[in-house]
Amino acid sequence: MKINIPKTIQLSQGAGGRMMEILIEKVIAKPLKMTKFEDAGIIQKSKIIKNNLAITTDGCSVRPMFYPGGDIGSLSVYATINDLAMMGAKPLAMTFGLFAQEGLDLKILKKVVKKMGKACEIGHCPIITGDTKVLERDKMEGILINTAGVGVIQSLTSDYGAKPGDKIIVSGTMGDHGLSLIAYRFNFKTSLKSDGAPLWDIVEKMLKIGGVHSLKDPTRGGFVPNANEIARKSNVCFYVYENKIPIKKEARALAEILGIDPLQTACEGKFIMACDSKKADKLLTSIKKSKYGKEATIIGEVREFPKKRVILETLIGGKKILEAPIGEQYPRIC
Amino acid sequence: MKINIPKTIQLSQGAGGRMMEILIEKVIAKPLKMTKFEDAGIIQKSKIIKNNLAITTDGCSVRPMFYPGGDIGSLSVYATINDLAMMGAKPLAMTFGLFAQEGLDLKILKKVVKKMGKACEIGHCPIITGDTKVLERDKMEGILINTAGVGVIQSLTSDYGAKPGDKIIVSGTMGDHGLSLIAYRFNFKTSLKSDGAPLWDIVEKMLKIGGVHSLKDPTRGGFVPNANEIARKSNVCFYVYENKIPIKKEARALAEILGIDPLQTACEGKFIMACDSKKADKLLTSIKKSKYGKEATIIGEVREFPKKRVILETLIGGKKILEAPIGEQYPRIC
Repeated sequence: MKINIPKTIQLSQGAGGRMMEILIEKVIAKPLKMTKFEDAGIIQKSKIIKNNLAITTDGCSVRPMFYPGGDIGSLSVYATINDLAMMGAKPLAMTFGLFAQEGLDLKILKKVVKKMGKACEIGHCPIITGDTKVLERDKMEGILINTAGVGVIQSLTSDYGAKPGDKIIVSGTMGDHGLSLIAYRFNFKTSLKSDGAPLWDIVEKMLKIGGVHSLKDPTRGGFVPNANEIARKSNVCFYVYENKIPIKKEARALAEILGIDPLQTACEGKFIMACDSKKADKLLTSIKKSKYGKEATIIGEVREFPKKRVILETLIGGKKILEAPIGEQYPRIC
Repeated sequence: MKINIPKTIQLSQGAGGRMMEILIEKVIAKPLKMTKFEDAGIIQKSKIIKNNLAITTDGCSVRPMFYPGGDIGSLSVYATINDLAMMGAKPLAMTFGLFAQEGLDLKILKKVVKKMGKACEIGHCPIITGDTKVLERDKMEGILINTAGVGVIQSLTSDYGAKPGDKIIVSGTMGDHGLSLIAYRFNFKTSLKSDGAPLWDIVEKMLKIGGVHSLKDPTRGGFVPNANEIARKSNVCFYVYENKIPIKKEARALAEILGIDPLQTACEGKFIMACDSKKADKLLTSIKKSKYGKEATIIGEVREFPKKRVILETLIGGKKILEAPIGEQYPRIC
């Protein structure tokens, strides 16, 4: 389907779907001469630099700024740690760019920064420099945070790396972050919490086992667009089984009430992996040992055809194409 | 003087003066366990990483977004390149974090990104990854850009490195960026232009000559707070001569009309350097050969006393302490 770029910027262009991809490809990447789009950019080793590095950045505008299981501060830290981890890069250090609104309560800023400090500790990656801008009240609202990070690539795990025959693993239940935020906003009483968590420690152990081909954290847009991205870039089919994909009961119930697809709702501490089938069980065991991977599951396999597609085998054995959404899912969460 | 932190965030806390420093030291750096504040953070080489790296970030909110001699896009690129250069680090690559307002004219975004691409070319440092967020109309206005960059330290040039006996050099006229922006906003007809420029190429040549002790680009707040920062951190006196400091005639005239100090107005393509006096002439010659350093001048010397002070010897031979401003200079430009 041909998608035209609208003449004014739309919310949907920041929502993780095809609209965003097209904006980035056509309007942003081309003038910047960027050719590959992954969770992070790669700096190849050379005469000047003796290691392969990954760098990444993440803008964080989540509202409310504090919610069950998380907050804008820890989210901004984990987002960058995880983007590096998804490339097989050990996070070395981060930067912190803050836009704050004039008149903001100092307590809020203090709380956010404290949460960031704690998240850096948990994620074993320090913030070592930053920049602060204060904007007039009419120019912005609250706090916007941009983190960036640099990591040393231990073993490159690329969106382009999935191979037919690979097993597909998710590291836990899908949709927790997005659904918990929606529940909180709507004042639904649930036990759902954001799953925000740093993933490098799990990834590091997996890289030692080997066989990790592709890694992606299904943040904006959740499982569906992110699985599609790997399938498209690796030129393969992601074939997954509905009865295998872990979704919390409460998440499923809430999603049903609201008419939201939990597979199209953001996670912030999970990954999708395509890995060598021979290593899959060992990798799964390793993930399950981690605090953040207890519900990890093999959910399907990579096939050759149909290329660039994510196919869901439903509970009753039917087949459904899970297409990347064009724009955004409502309600909006970040 | 004791300065208390106000209970709500003030514009002055983002303006480059003492108010900002205190906010950063007390509220931001402490919970993040940051101990040193320079243009960039340093990652020491270790078993994991074989080079000393510098990383930095810069938030860019300049209004208007396009102005004589520059724009928000190129500014965001040069800011990060220069922060790395000021640490003696060769820029390797950058990230680009964009917050854009829903409803923004696509043409504006296109123009900004094009300018960024051009600036990357001129500055010899690519943007290799990015993140885009679109915010509702009532949450922000226009475009905010956060760049971050990583560089390899060739020879560390630190704010803490100035030594008594050093010569002080500025690479060109002071206050051009800020004053040109103010003129443009007020619709004054002048030939002033922003001096936005990438500085690594000049720095690289200087590092080969040697004797470069401290480098700082006098961006927010201009010469005065930035010279004070080096003097304070290096525990020395910056002794400078009013008749030596290069200021454009038109800038001086405009500053006088508006009651603005050109030494407290931002530059975006200049540096202040403290260097070995024996190398000063050679370094000066080298700077002057560059397109961006034609008006470089030795403006004074580093002395032992009075420590942590910037002293200006006036045209008539008097002495004046140039104190770092508490808050911000009006009119506000970024």
